[in-house]
Amino acid sequence: MVQTTRAVTVRTRGAGLYEITRELKDTISASGVQSGLVTVFCRHTSCSLLIQENADPDVRADLQEFFSRLAPHGMAWVTHTTEGPDDMPAHIRAALTQTSISIPILNTLAALGTWQGLYLFEHRAAPHERSVIFHVIGEA
Amino acid sequence: MVQTTRAVTVRTRGAGLYEITRELKDTISASGVQSGLVTVFCRHTSCSLLIQENADPDVRADLQEFFSRLAPHGMAWVTHTTEGPDDMPAHIRAALTQTSISIPILNTLAALGTWQGLYLFEHRAAPHERSVIFHVIGEA
Amino acid sequence: MVQTTRAVTVRTRGAGLYEITRELKDTISASGVQSGLVTVFCRHTSCSLLIQENADPDVRADLQEFFSRLAPHGMAWVTHTTEGPDDMPAHIRAALTQTSISIPILNTLAALGTWQGLYLFEHRAAPHERSVIFHVIGEA
Repeated sequence: MVQTTRAVTVRTRGAGLYEITRELKDTISASGVQSGLVTVFCRHTSCSLLIQENADPDVRADLQEFFSRLAPHGMAWVTHTTEGPDDMPAHIRAALTQTSISIPILNTLAALGTWQGLYLFEHRAAPHERSVIFHVIGEA
Repeated sequence: MVQTTRAVTVRTRGAGLYEITRELKDTISASGVQSGLVTVFCRHTSCSLLIQENADPDVRADLQEFFSRLAPHGMAWVTHTTEGPDDMPAHIRAALTQTSISIPILNTLAALGTWQGLYLFEHRAAPHERSVIFHVIGEA
Repeated sequence: MVQTTRAVTVRTRGAGLYEITRELKDTISASGVQSGLVTVFCRHTSCSLLIQENADPDVRADLQEFFSRLAPHGMAWVTHTTEGPDDMPAHIRAALTQTSISIPILNTLAALGTWQGLYLFEHRAAPHERSVIFHVIGEA
């Protein structure tokens, strides 16, 4: 059994879904693991992770719209407003999605379904540098 | 340290929670692992995973009802409608729940609490064949 | 490769976020693992796990308020009411957050971001004894 860890920086340009499936695949390839488990971890509380459809970009736009409506900017009852109107909604949207996702590795590949892509879900309005960590464990 | 992977097909008959706790337990038994970790992964973006109460079926019905109200069919602003009115709500409900869940294994058993069952949460209206992958790692 | 498992009891005093970052760190230290993966698992269906901001306590209060509004006590359509008005909302809030979270371990430490803390999110109104299990795997 072997393991490896890799940190990846994702540069975001405002709220939305940024695909990191290639980074996932490259990490598995570089690890030499043939069968095992890869875990993705997001080191922030105002962006998150999501596996979602990689085909029609409308799905990502609609997901973004849904979360914008569920936890909109300017909710009157919010007390944490020091970093602006998009700050607390960002924490809420992160809480509603994922901080970590684990995916089995089969025959050197992530066992993603045909339509699954891995995304960093940015919830802040301004550009950010985000840090994601991949951990791979398994048999080479 | 040993590991094993198993793919399971779940046949769904419309939106709702389908219990797969037996498949989880059988996978652990077959692996021979006495202590370790099992990870469940759902290979779709319009169904998901959930650990929820396995006692009163009303809990599952109420969960289904809640998500039906939170992301209902026919939201006017949705643009991704090619596969019907239940398609985008299914992606949203999947995003709000889990694509992967990891459970420790203690003394040959999944460390589930007394009232915890593992469910595939189908969000589409029509029957589907769903693929779930179990990865087990630990000491035999 | 080595692994270890530890069960921790968390005593809650009503709905809210209870930090368990210290328990996470202590578990990793005691395991002797230098690089690897730690998985946290919550053995209940009416409380859950969340990684969120550990700086301004207003963030936790606002998160609590958001979920109280999204799935409030006394929703008229709920059928599972045997354990009181806070029971089904607790299951719903648990479904919307996490039952398990996995975090890479780098240089003997959980790879948490600067502002990330690990929390048990209690959704019931009365005090409860909650059980959380940590599983650590990696290289000593």
